Amino acid sequence: MAFPTVGIVGAGQLARMTAPAAAALGVRLRLLAGSPDESAAQVVPDVVLGSPDDLDALRRLADGCDVITFEHEHVPPEHLEALVADGVPVRPGPAALVHAQDKAVMRERLTAAGIPCPRWRVVASADDVAGFAAEAGWPVVLKTARGGYDGRGVWVVGSTAEAVEVLEAAAARGVRVLAEEKVAFVRELAAQVARSPHGQAVAYPVVETVQRQGICREVFAPAPGLAEDAAVAAQEVALRIAGLLDMVGIMAVELFETADGRVLVNELAMRPHNSGHWTIEGAVTSQFEQHLRAVLDLPLGSPAALGPHAVMANVLGGDYPDMYPAYRHILARDPGVKVHMYGKQVRPGRKVGHVTVVGDGPLDGLTERARHAAAYLTGEITE
Amino acid sequence: MAFPTVGIVGAGQLARMTAPAAAALGVRLRLLAGSPDESAAQVVPDVVLGSPDDLDALRRLADGCDVITFEHEHVPPEHLEALVADGVPVRPGPAALVHAQDKAVMRERLTAAGIPCPRWRVVASADDVAGFAAEAGWPVVLKTARGGYDGRGVWVVGSTAEAVEVLEAAAARGVRVLAEEKVAFVRELAAQVARSPHGQAVAYPVVETVQRQGICREVFAPAPGLAEDAAVAAQEVALRIAGLLDMVGIMAVELFETADGRVLVNELAMRPHNSGHWTIEGAVTSQFEQHLRAVLDLPLGSPAALGPHAVMANVLGGDYPDMYPAYRHILARDPGVKVHMYGKQVRPGRKVGHVTVVGDGPLDGLTERARHAAAYLTGEITE
Repeated sequence: MAFPTVGIVGAGQLARMTAPAAAALGVRLRLLAGSPDESAAQVVPDVVLGSPDDLDALRRLADGCDVITFEHEHVPPEHLEALVADGVPVRPGPAALVHAQDKAVMRERLTAAGIPCPRWRVVASADDVAGFAAEAGWPVVLKTARGGYDGRGVWVVGSTAEAVEVLEAAAARGVRVLAEEKVAFVRELAAQVARSPHGQAVAYPVVETVQRQGICREVFAPAPGLAEDAAVAAQEVALRIAGLLDMVGIMAVELFETADGRVLVNELAMRPHNSGHWTIEGAVTSQFEQHLRAVLDLPLGSPAALGPHAVMANVLGGDYPDMYPAYRHILARDPGVKVHMYGKQVRPGRKVGHVTVVGDGPLDGLTERARHAAAYLTGEITE
Repeated sequence: MAFPTVGIVGAGQLARMTAPAAAALGVRLRLLAGSPDESAAQVVPDVVLGSPDDLDALRRLADGCDVITFEHEHVPPEHLEALVADGVPVRPGPAALVHAQDKAVMRERLTAAGIPCPRWRVVASADDVAGFAAEAGWPVVLKTARGGYDGRGVWVVGSTAEAVEVLEAAAARGVRVLAEEKVAFVRELAAQVARSPHGQAVAYPVVETVQRQGICREVFAPAPGLAEDAAVAAQEVALRIAGLLDMVGIMAVELFETADGRVLVNELAMRPHNSGHWTIEGAVTSQFEQHLRAVLDLPLGSPAALGPHAVMANVLGGDYPDMYPAYRHILARDPGVKVHMYGKQVRPGRKVGHVTVVGDGPLDGLTERARHAAAYLTGEITE
């Protein structure tokens, strides 16, 4: 059979949750994993051990794959260019992926295209930060252009003295720093779209995401109370970015919703994203299946929601290394909650699973169920 | 983490479709496969190669597993008793599983419990068949008590001369033969239930199944037009059988619906079953997840349907060994159809995949979509 093989750089929970979609589609997966214990390496037979910093490892991954894609952006662009030069289809391509790898490049490109972003500037000195703050006000958000995730690489600073510490640490690592205005947002949204090489694109319902300490904790799909025209506007921004960047695959556009109803682009993720986990149960085509279809240039699936509401809550590691007793309790308490465990060692604050509740009941009830299950598994509550 | 490992005897599509459920639950799988190319061995890393007829292979499978279960019934009962004697939890246990392995044992047990079955008799000679036909009429259905599936091991005979051929072939193989009345059924139904070791049980919506040449082709969930009291009666029969046999895991009870509204038990399957594939997209808890939860003595999940209708159609192998072009066409034609490919070589008549359509549209429209996709993939139609 001519069914293809997809190589994924990375073997965390995003690759793990791609495995079921691949099995159903009849598509084979090969992973690049740091160790055979990683989340996805537990559930995928074909694993190449190595680092994404190692071009030889990437070439071993690519050998026999029909396309290479990613579950994270931490791959040196020059290695991706080398794979492309080898003739390997890399999707999204390096020229698109750089916008998820480098926030300064992303800001430059989106601003040039007139896509609304927070005020921003690349800063190299205390004077630069002070000058930016004189226009945008304190506090200022500083971000390393590369390498951050889940709140790492982001600082909110209230003075040039605080900024200097961040700048010096970044300079020591050789990464650029962006200053951004601290947007007084009402809430955060995410607009997820998928685009295929021949340009077919679909947009998922816009969701609300809730972060605590920079880590996504809850997602509500669709975003409660979001006006139809605002939702369409957010989808249009995401579709426009996908086309502008010649993106291939699934992309999440994280957005700030402001009090006056505007949306500003916060970040881009060019891979399956935490804001789309609800699609496994909540949409006709999950983000994981959609990503595979997009990178294989297969026709895209329907992004329609299956029900009126879905609520996703992340399970973080807590104080108890063995979650199994809490897990049994949760399954007994709520036969309708969908629990996803990632097979990861519990460490405090680490994402080790998530729960989703879908249904046609009132949103408050679904939220309480998802929130309770996640908090109980995390160990924040005990009854 | 104390999350368990489940060993499955078999590595066909039923084990393949169990893998996604296991990954989400955080449960590890180990398979007993005849070869590394088998459907499920393509998507599960931990595979023991060997035959279910080989006790040593079964013991290698069991080593390190928390429970052993099945995707087919073709395991010698004495081997299962040996595993039980080793202290291995085998679920369903041999005393339950024999009712799915041996149709004569099943008929004896259900008849003794007053559960409605077609008229039946174990037959060893032409005279036995003639005597049965004098009561139940011609034609007579002859079945080998053991070893049949997908219509194999079943013959409809119109005379003692035809019966003699079947009896002689069966005698040569040392298997018993049952004669059963040919039920003038209106349609076939299936009632799927799950039961856990401590006796929790759930019943799925009763479905209609459509067979052609003994092979399941289509499933409608719930069975269209089935009266509520008839559905409850069928569920009660299945739950009663599960309790009677001390069944653990998921069980499908195949039923004949007669013109006067009775249901008669046709066969039992003590594992995930083709009649339950619709539950992957159509129910809160898929039959595969439910089976894992049951054999692990985890609390069972909700068997509720997510929408008003689901239609499943099997994809059989046709004349074209490469289905990928047809598959691309189907995905493009219908962004809402869910295609499941099993990674199996195409051979004419072999089950190589299935499609499911769920939705709240009219049943006729869903049926047309599922039927078209399956027929196009099979190669029965070309537009």
